[in-house]
Amino acid sequence: MKTSPQCAPCLLNRVLYEAELSTKDPELRFKAVQGGLEFLNENFYPGADAIKISTGIHRKAYNILGDKDPYRELKILSNKLAMEAVPYVRQQMDGLMPEERFRLAVLATIIGNTFDFGVQGHDVETGDFMAFYERMVEQGLDIDHTAEIRKLAMNSDVLYIVDNCGEIYFDELLIEELKALGAKVTLVVRGEYILTDVTMEDVVRMGLDKKVDRVLTTGSNAVGVSLEEAPAELIEALETYPLIISKGMANYESLGERGFKNMAYLLRAKCETVAAAIGARKGYNVAKLVL
Amino acid sequence: MKTSPQCAPCLLNRVLYEAELSTKDPELRFKAVQGGLEFLNENFYPGADAIKISTGIHRKAYNILGDKDPYRELKILSNKLAMEAVPYVRQQMDGLMPEERFRLAVLATIIGNTFDFGVQGHDVETGDFMAFYERMVEQGLDIDHTAEIRKLAMNSDVLYIVDNCGEIYFDELLIEELKALGAKVTLVVRGEYILTDVTMEDVVRMGLDKKVDRVLTTGSNAVGVSLEEAPAELIEALETYPLIISKGMANYESLGERGFKNMAYLLRAKCETVAAAIGARKGYNVAKLVL
Repeated sequence: MKTSPQCAPCLLNRVLYEAELSTKDPELRFKAVQGGLEFLNENFYPGADAIKISTGIHRKAYNILGDKDPYRELKILSNKLAMEAVPYVRQQMDGLMPEERFRLAVLATIIGNTFDFGVQGHDVETGDFMAFYERMVEQGLDIDHTAEIRKLAMNSDVLYIVDNCGEIYFDELLIEELKALGAKVTLVVRGEYILTDVTMEDVVRMGLDKKVDRVLTTGSNAVGVSLEEAPAELIEALETYPLIISKGMANYESLGERGFKNMAYLLRAKCETVAAAIGARKGYNVAKLVL
Repeated sequence: MKTSPQCAPCLLNRVLYEAELSTKDPELRFKAVQGGLEFLNENFYPGADAIKISTGIHRKAYNILGDKDPYRELKILSNKLAMEAVPYVRQQMDGLMPEERFRLAVLATIIGNTFDFGVQGHDVETGDFMAFYERMVEQGLDIDHTAEIRKLAMNSDVLYIVDNCGEIYFDELLIEELKALGAKVTLVVRGEYILTDVTMEDVVRMGLDKKVDRVLTTGSNAVGVSLEEAPAELIEALETYPLIISKGMANYESLGERGFKNMAYLLRAKCETVAAAIGARKGYNVAKLVL
């Protein structure tokens, strides 16, 4: 996906945000923002790749801050809130017929996709997450290809590219549904810490690695999936699997225009740039299959 | 006032905001943001003067956009909303004793100071301004030196440096109170269009020039008051007047650390950087006298 004029202030705000998470030192915060400006001044131009810019600016900011994981506390918070909600979602799912049950699992993973801190114009609901969850269930899916996605999942190889912590607990519910449909699930996590994204240690800690058939990593701390940095198995799966579930905006930004087939993009459209690219509006809950 | 790490993304957002107000051309919007990045990359460093940066970046953006007044529609909207509210404020004032009446006039001008579009983290209430007005009256003044300000105004020369359109209609009420106290009022407006700020044509259109004793301009389209660009009469008044009323954040940013005396800063603290500098918190209604 190409960058838009909105991306520059949003990314600069996010650099400030992670600087504030990482350090109380005002000089270091200033340096991080200056580093972001320098990076954008060099790399932000019409037609530039959105994900290369976001990967580059965060790497530079982490480097200036001397911090490998500024979001560590927020990841713990997200996990806590999601874990509290999961039993309730399970209860809701238990009363439903198979297709509806699958749809609710998909929707829950998209509600989980709101655990994305620092996106300009998007506030994470940490106060009363359950009330927020209910409002989102009421909103439902604004683009809903769940029936087709479910069909493709039956007895298939499914590549499941995860996004944020917190969200991952809802992903677990959907993965259980996929497994119940006979799917072989290959999970893809980030290779290193980036933003609030799931890494291998998160899935090992929660035992999700035992529930899936294989876990791959993206091979790096790129935002989304960098095809240049991804291991060969991941590229092969992207090119051959009959169903690829891609969670969240960054995975869409990095994979959406690469010509891969059988892509199911599950995301909350948290900014206008991504919303416009995927054919949605800001605030939409999107389950879009691209064959 | 010195710039802070928060200022860079806020200003870049504001450049984007005025680009979106000014043009539908995505390329031109992109160019404006790139211009902002280039400017900040050169001029944003610890200790840099906040107002020089904001003046410089807006001048550059206006220049790129080829637009002398991107905020023209918003100024009209602000004026409309304020004009609708003024009769109600007058009614409220009419029932009050002199000191309370003066305090309400001051508070109304600070409520008017919320007509400031494009400040990050600050939303202008355009939907139901009257309900917002009532909430603000209930909040009252969080820093309240109105009694001392009123005393200084009696039979004095008062320099009144205005800020935004819309707000100016509430300023008119306070100016009437000042005149009733025997003050001679010199109004100061911007020399040219900048943001939603009041210029000579605004006060002439509303006839406010007839109600005051003199109108000066800041001599330029600087954000706030640039002492380098201000006419000699304005500098003289700043140095000698027994009461200077300075409305809004930008006037404070430009004058607050210049050693002037008898300054009454009336503003809504719409960002943490200004709030911290003036000894308030974000969201405070401030009427602070610095002798």
